[in-house]
Amino acid sequence: MSELNHRILLHARPGGIPEPSNFVADTVPVRPPAADEVLLETIFLSIDPAMRSWMSEDSSAHSSVPLGEVMRGGGIARVLQSRSPMFRPGEHVQARLGWQTHPTLPARYVQKADAARGDARAWIGVLGLSAVTAYFGMRDIGEVTPGDNVLVSAAAGGVGQIAAQIARIEACHVAGIAGGADKCAYLASELKLDGVIDRKAENDLAAAIGRACPDGIDLYFDNVGGPTLDAALMHLRPGARVVLCGRISQVAAANSYAVRNLGMILTRRARMQGFQVFRYHDRYEEARAWLAARYREGALQQRLHVLDGLDQAPAALGMLFRGENTGKLVVQVGREFSHARPSR
Amino acid sequence: MSELNHRILLHARPGGIPEPSNFVADTVPVRPPAADEVLLETIFLSIDPAMRSWMSEDSSAHSSVPLGEVMRGGGIARVLQSRSPMFRPGEHVQARLGWQTHPTLPARYVQKADAARGDARAWIGVLGLSAVTAYFGMRDIGEVTPGDNVLVSAAAGGVGQIAAQIARIEACHVAGIAGGADKCAYLASELKLDGVIDRKAENDLAAAIGRACPDGIDLYFDNVGGPTLDAALMHLRPGARVVLCGRISQVAAANSYAVRNLGMILTRRARMQGFQVFRYHDRYEEARAWLAARYREGALQQRLHVLDGLDQAPAALGMLFRGENTGKLVVQVGREFSHARPSR
Repeated sequence: MSELNHRILLHARPGGIPEPSNFVADTVPVRPPAADEVLLETIFLSIDPAMRSWMSEDSSAHSSVPLGEVMRGGGIARVLQSRSPMFRPGEHVQARLGWQTHPTLPARYVQKADAARGDARAWIGVLGLSAVTAYFGMRDIGEVTPGDNVLVSAAAGGVGQIAAQIARIEACHVAGIAGGADKCAYLASELKLDGVIDRKAENDLAAAIGRACPDGIDLYFDNVGGPTLDAALMHLRPGARVVLCGRISQVAAANSYAVRNLGMILTRRARMQGFQVFRYHDRYEEARAWLAARYREGALQQRLHVLDGLDQAPAALGMLFRGENTGKLVVQVGREFSHARPSR
Repeated sequence: MSELNHRILLHARPGGIPEPSNFVADTVPVRPPAADEVLLETIFLSIDPAMRSWMSEDSSAHSSVPLGEVMRGGGIARVLQSRSPMFRPGEHVQARLGWQTHPTLPARYVQKADAARGDARAWIGVLGLSAVTAYFGMRDIGEVTPGDNVLVSAAAGGVGQIAAQIARIEACHVAGIAGGADKCAYLASELKLDGVIDRKAENDLAAAIGRACPDGIDLYFDNVGGPTLDAALMHLRPGARVVLCGRISQVAAANSYAVRNLGMILTRRARMQGFQVFRYHDRYEEARAWLAARYREGALQQRLHVLDGLDQAPAALGMLFRGENTGKLVVQVGREFSHARPSR
């Protein structure tokens, strides 16, 4: 194997929103798999908010990526060579591939992306880790219940789209917050949410939430934190659950927003809980089986925002934190570097 | 029965901390009990933070006390006359007596305060509603677990003392926050807490919490809210629980404090939950049986701060909100008006 592995390395830690200058590209020979390893060809890489904390030196939630190493990232790949009895060439898999075209990984770090459940696009989308995140957040943490009044922030984003649709499937009244007319039109016409709030078009977000959730909020699925969280708290119903899944508005902020309405947690006997999907690792299959069944029924979809080529990944992170993506943000790597597959 | 019932009525709604001028006293003839009613002689009244919200017009958590009516309040009383088969003269009971010396109440609103479990002082203290609150807060909401690192704010207060002792009983490392050397000495020498923080003696509360909880916090039982809550959040361990039981620092504040460290709820996968003891009404007996057993064993005590006479009640509320009480704050009514009992 004389092919090349194109990689993107973490070069500098970000101050605020990640910039392309935080990364450098290089090219190394593909490493042939050792025993119990597989050589993969990356198809899709998922661009996720958690990456900002992986880039930071002091990350309380995750271990940092060392400077000079391949940027961490999950995605979908095709098996090129396998020295594991678990995988055969041509199969789709998902794993923490890193930002590289041809990762060579221990087979135990790789999971099958069963083609019977969906193609690579489904596996990075409705069956991907952000969908699994929405599943555990809505069901285990949020304890979504038929009839709940549900509000989802960043509802057009990777996790938010699935969270909102899970609430629809569970017979809830669902409102979503997104930034911009295009995203909001998607939420209303495609995902058929009961209420849609364009945060960029509203001067008074709390009042807009009040209009979209006229009976208050039983379950708030929060992907953004900051003032949106504060506004949602004002509308909690007794016994409400607030799922803290992300805080993208705050992750790269110089000064964290201070929340005024925490008293509502007490007076409404509410529960606010943070979670990280990695803690549910043992139950991913449960989530994927559920998501795959809903996808097969046509009850679940995911709009992707696809950037073409590994070299787009560094700029993609900035887009994510500026809210410029119109759907779950992914980088398509496979086509660009398909020369590594002799059959094409 | 020609005896008199001395009462304290709500006269005006408070702006900030309740003041004696918010109340007026009057005297009316004792009302003889009708069928299924009891006439009581108040012994102790409990002075609780929730009373501030009962005094307010727009109370989201509780219904307001109308102006001109007897101030709401719970306590321990002696049965003077009974027209219910459930109660006999001389028995101790607990109920929402109101701020009056001789309430006449439907028997169904009155519960026995079994003398075998404790005297009136025990029933207003270690078996009282603030102890029951601590029980459900620590166990049901906080899910206290042996080995937990526990922090309790207002740990010398009515709920806090019991919460801290429950954590001790459950083999936790327990630190308490209180205001002033006297309260802190009590926590260290009598309740034998592992760590004590005098918030009045600390410039940097977060640093003091770090010293008192060197391994971080698994369970924070919060009675105060505001900056103390914010400082505690900085020390949460993964999977921590934050029990929002009260927010006495904020209830009468003109501007609510804004909390900066909510991000810790997400990054530490923590849970913050508010609760109100009234929701556990069906399980009070479970709590009292547990508390009575620990009290009998000598594992549970409660320091009371006793004010003498019903006329002290209006000023007592201000003391509570200024933190001037050194123990659970109660008003002893019985002695003052014992002329209503013919046998004395």
